[in-house]
Amino acid sequence: MVLREKALAHNIRWMQRFVDERGLALAPHGKTTMTPAIFRRQIEAGAWGITLATAAQCRAAYREAGVRHLLMANQLVGAGNMAIVSALIADPEVTYYCTVDSVDNVRALSHFFAARNQTVQVLIELGVPGGRCGCRSQEEALALAELIDTCPGIQVAGVEGYEGIIHGDDLPDRIRAYADELIATTAALVERGLTAVKRPVITASGSAWYDVIAAAFTESGARDRFLPLLRPGCYVAHDHGLYRRAHADILARLHSDPGDGLMPALEVWAHIHSIPEPGLVVAGIGKRDIAYDADLPIPLRRCRAGGDDSALSVNGWTVTGIMDQHAFIAVPADEDVRVGDIVAFGSSHPCLTFDKWRFIALADENFRVKDYLTTRF
Amino acid sequence: MVLREKALAHNIRWMQRFVDERGLALAPHGKTTMTPAIFRRQIEAGAWGITLATAAQCRAAYREAGVRHLLMANQLVGAGNMAIVSALIADPEVTYYCTVDSVDNVRALSHFFAARNQTVQVLIELGVPGGRCGCRSQEEALALAELIDTCPGIQVAGVEGYEGIIHGDDLPDRIRAYADELIATTAALVERGLTAVKRPVITASGSAWYDVIAAAFTESGARDRFLPLLRPGCYVAHDHGLYRRAHADILARLHSDPGDGLMPALEVWAHIHSIPEPGLVVAGIGKRDIAYDADLPIPLRRCRAGGDDSALSVNGWTVTGIMDQHAFIAVPADEDVRVGDIVAFGSSHPCLTFDKWRFIALADENFRVKDYLTTRF
Repeated sequence: MVLREKALAHNIRWMQRFVDERGLALAPHGKTTMTPAIFRRQIEAGAWGITLATAAQCRAAYREAGVRHLLMANQLVGAGNMAIVSALIADPEVTYYCTVDSVDNVRALSHFFAARNQTVQVLIELGVPGGRCGCRSQEEALALAELIDTCPGIQVAGVEGYEGIIHGDDLPDRIRAYADELIATTAALVERGLTAVKRPVITASGSAWYDVIAAAFTESGARDRFLPLLRPGCYVAHDHGLYRRAHADILARLHSDPGDGLMPALEVWAHIHSIPEPGLVVAGIGKRDIAYDADLPIPLRRCRAGGDDSALSVNGWTVTGIMDQHAFIAVPADEDVRVGDIVAFGSSHPCLTFDKWRFIALADENFRVKDYLTTRF
Repeated sequence: MVLREKALAHNIRWMQRFVDERGLALAPHGKTTMTPAIFRRQIEAGAWGITLATAAQCRAAYREAGVRHLLMANQLVGAGNMAIVSALIADPEVTYYCTVDSVDNVRALSHFFAARNQTVQVLIELGVPGGRCGCRSQEEALALAELIDTCPGIQVAGVEGYEGIIHGDDLPDRIRAYADELIATTAALVERGLTAVKRPVITASGSAWYDVIAAAFTESGARDRFLPLLRPGCYVAHDHGLYRRAHADILARLHSDPGDGLMPALEVWAHIHSIPEPGLVVAGIGKRDIAYDADLPIPLRRCRAGGDDSALSVNGWTVTGIMDQHAFIAVPADEDVRVGDIVAFGSSHPCLTFDKWRFIALADENFRVKDYLTTRF
């Protein structure tokens, strides 16, 4: 796996500028890369902190990238996981939030942290009917906050949502309506005196709809009353499939030039192993090397080992199938292709590509490796 | 991820006995687990060596499990990979084979290894039309062997095939016919004096058809003239889906009692995070924790944190969807289920579950952790 440093740096700047221009704050989802060196670059560029999906991921971000603002966009469940968080928040420099959506979880957190004379800060998760986690209505969210208000060891710090599980028609409108509901719920929490923090958190957004969430947070004035955290993750590597398409929609909604957006930074390279029949190429790349759930890998370029540096064509090349360690590629029958040729593939999407690798080659535009980044999955 | 030691030990003994009883030899495919501690157990139980899929996997098996017989069931392509193998075969104790199916690859291997005064031993891969890698006919295979005979630095050591890419009707008969073709090709190599080794290798079989391959190798007498290597990989952990079904077919073909077979050794445990709607449960297990390409995870058992050790029901529980870090489970609407309950899931299949983990808990039948095994993906 190769990360192109220029594109990576561009994407980090791009998203930070997007957020800064709107007066919002950025907590990039770290689950995408789980690469401490990338977390450090995101923080240095101005991110408020890092979002994570599990307690173990939070610990890795804290220990290996020095991240002190940790937004765990997930429920904290299980004594082992709570013990990890207990150790993190024992550091007075750490700000940590997790989400809650159930009475049982609130009671378990209260019991665990009160017994340690600690207080865990939680965000009420507001979901959507038929969606994933989260309270299904503002009433349910407020009732949960009222319960928390009576419990030791736990404190409401704001509201969390994730618009990525909303599907169907009229998506921009429905996502805007969902963002508005998050804002109304956060406002209601404050009005009822149910949050203990001065500036409650309001947070949503993956890498496909952050523009709609950002518009809601800015136009409503939520950014001035709350700490408005956007948490896209995939933007940092971008991709050649799912997020390329989603990003084109974002740029269109923003009336931006299609050339002014994110740049795909992630490639996976593989050799051609076999050309057993005319038009059929087998490459040494499989389900263990690259994501395959949204799209199959996308051939980008090709070069010949021992040849000059000029790229060979992959026009008309299509990955038609993938196994654990191999991919099948249909190529034009008269293609000048040889066993040993090296193909660079784009992926769709990045989260399930990063997690295949323990080390990633960080390369300049001439594909000279400048560093190896370590992942912490 | 939890490996049940009793089942693991049973499966290692079971397959070794299967192979021993037939006068064959075992080179378990190590790509499944990439767990050196398991490789050591397989070798100690009597395996001839370990099969691997890449040069880097071979190096890991050599360095971290002391494996000296390495069957790389794949083409060796690229100077970087050849350099890894060059270092391995510099050890006089190492026996290493890779597969070849093309003139270009033969020339590249010859050039690389002759320049180092080394000889790489190769198996001619015999494939099937419309399949994956491999020569498409015996004639093509023999022509390639004749070329190798004229090249320095490379030697034919036998024939390799993989029946797992054959699909369609009449599979047992077609796989038997394919095995017979492998045998005929190996015999033809010997007759024409095209192999340089005393006991040429003949090898095939994944974890779904080793009984048919074994029958062909024994009934034809191939086992007496050649080194007959079976290379199933998934059997060692077995599973609750793809290979449970394939194994039931194997036991039926062997006229064995269905209770006398392999035991599923692999489980992935997760907490229930949310019960946002009646009948909908969200668990903290996702595409990053368990395979999802053949079947979605299969709920096996459940227990309650802080409760007694008795298992709670998962009758009627079905995983209906999976995201990166979460799974959706449909449960009976009146189920006694709580956030914090721990669910053990079976997987389908093992290769794409092992590769999600850097450490695996090896547990006894009471689920006391006896050791943590390190994977080397």
